[in-house]
Amino acid sequence: MSSSPFAGVLVPVLTPFDRNGQPDGARFVAFCRWLLDEGADGLAIFGTTSEANSMSAAERMALLDRLVAAGVPAAKLMPGSGACSMTEAAMLARHAVEHGCGGVLMLPPFYYKGMPDDGLFGFISGVIDKVGSAALKVYLYHIPPVAQVGYSLDLIGRLIKAYPNTVVGLKDSSGDWSNTAAILENFPGFGVFPGSEIFLLDGLRKGAVGCITASGNVNVPGIRKAYENWQGPQADALQAEITTVRKTIQAYPMVPALKAIVAHFHNDPEWAAVRPPMVPLAAAQTQALLADLRRIGFTLGERRREAAE
Amino acid sequence: MSSSPFAGVLVPVLTPFDRNGQPDGARFVAFCRWLLDEGADGLAIFGTTSEANSMSAAERMALLDRLVAAGVPAAKLMPGSGACSMTEAAMLARHAVEHGCGGVLMLPPFYYKGMPDDGLFGFISGVIDKVGSAALKVYLYHIPPVAQVGYSLDLIGRLIKAYPNTVVGLKDSSGDWSNTAAILENFPGFGVFPGSEIFLLDGLRKGAVGCITASGNVNVPGIRKAYENWQGPQADALQAEITTVRKTIQAYPMVPALKAIVAHFHNDPEWAAVRPPMVPLAAAQTQALLADLRRIGFTLGERRREAAE
Repeated sequence: MSSSPFAGVLVPVLTPFDRNGQPDGARFVAFCRWLLDEGADGLAIFGTTSEANSMSAAERMALLDRLVAAGVPAAKLMPGSGACSMTEAAMLARHAVEHGCGGVLMLPPFYYKGMPDDGLFGFISGVIDKVGSAALKVYLYHIPPVAQVGYSLDLIGRLIKAYPNTVVGLKDSSGDWSNTAAILENFPGFGVFPGSEIFLLDGLRKGAVGCITASGNVNVPGIRKAYENWQGPQADALQAEITTVRKTIQAYPMVPALKAIVAHFHNDPEWAAVRPPMVPLAAAQTQALLADLRRIGFTLGERRREAAE
Repeated sequence: MSSSPFAGVLVPVLTPFDRNGQPDGARFVAFCRWLLDEGADGLAIFGTTSEANSMSAAERMALLDRLVAAGVPAAKLMPGSGACSMTEAAMLARHAVEHGCGGVLMLPPFYYKGMPDDGLFGFISGVIDKVGSAALKVYLYHIPPVAQVGYSLDLIGRLIKAYPNTVVGLKDSSGDWSNTAAILENFPGFGVFPGSEIFLLDGLRKGAVGCITASGNVNVPGIRKAYENWQGPQADALQAEITTVRKTIQAYPMVPALKAIVAHFHNDPEWAAVRPPMVPLAAAQTQALLADLRRIGFTLGERRREAAE
């Protein structure tokens, strides 16, 4: 089994939309640069948090083109290449490989439910075969609460066995620690990322390589600090801090909440826009969220101002 | 509220794939023609049964181009134009309108779950506005067992009110008769199609305009006969017959089963192919299904042979 090219704190980057509802390339590039400056080890662009599935394949590819053209290092990018059709998933994965992206994050085909593992295996192997490149590094994206289709332990094992140099890791957004633990136990050396920093410390202690987490969009430094000190005496306290931030945010609809926080602390109201079927937070919700964050001493604002001074 | 341009027996047409896994335009055209010859009132190409979501938008548009170029009347076509992104859904709907299709069948955005009706309304209205054509006739596609996202009664009402000349009907594949009944009661004149012939007679008696049903791929004549005689003395007996056929088939995975039946009775083994994540029936399953159909006197074979003589 090949080792994971990614480790540490990865952010599924929010996608900004302009006032016409179109993906905003300039804001996207600036935000990706800022996240890397904040200490993100990688950018899992076009994930669930990115509203990737509210964009067409062409829109996603155009944003990636823009990012790479702006000089953001492709090796730090793990674009989501999931789609319901093998055709489109292969096109997105090939495009990422051609740009030299460090990996891709691959949803299972998520329209048809209750499909047998043989069919899911056929889909993923079909995509890998169509791309046909040794440079392709696939991270399986397991997020059954949203996709309603997931990767079973047996299927993960079959894929690793069939493509040991290609299928190198997995993001587990099941929210079920026992599932993450079982993957870590069954596949030592596999590049496993819990999909929330709530499981960061538990994950690292059991062999996970980091986490890919939505709240990274607003809290890379906090999560990084916990990641870097996971074997130190402050590990549990640092974990508790980032868990508190996460739980405060996820009490609200996650993507609109994160965008409201970015809009507020980056002084850029347009950032609050989401694409249907999502709806932005109501003004009162935004105020309540910001009050909750003040109550726990969330400091993105201070750091932003300090950085500007 | 505008009346529905479609009524009667509509078939969500199976999509044939060739030995390389590509959509097979020639077989598709021939099969669509055959279905119309059999008496189908319309073809709901690119639905769930069509494995539409296992095809890219480009593949779907190329098949529609091919069908229209071959002379299949566009007015009889109701292509599925559903997608997770407004961008792609609008592109597919516009393409259908440009070809003069009688309508489109529109899934709600099905990746994100638990979205509020406001967000779903924003999505559908955004698509309609982007297409911006009085020729667009939208049938809402309600299939929560697969999409896991659906159209509530309230949302249906809001869409009809906002777009009375565009949102003209709905296919209800919930499998829940009480839901179909509630839609029929709340929106008289709305073009409602149960998504299974099992509810054909109940539907017609309550104001439905027909049905759009997967088993139409192999049983248009039977379903048509029940449809045409729904007010006659044989109605219940005819309904019982088509219900028996449907239940016999749906004891197996539906799409692979229908393709196995087509492959057998059309003497064309390649028809059995499905795209991942679906898997074809195993040989033993196919034999069991064909035996079950013989047991109930299913006569597609006889009719095929008679037609050929």
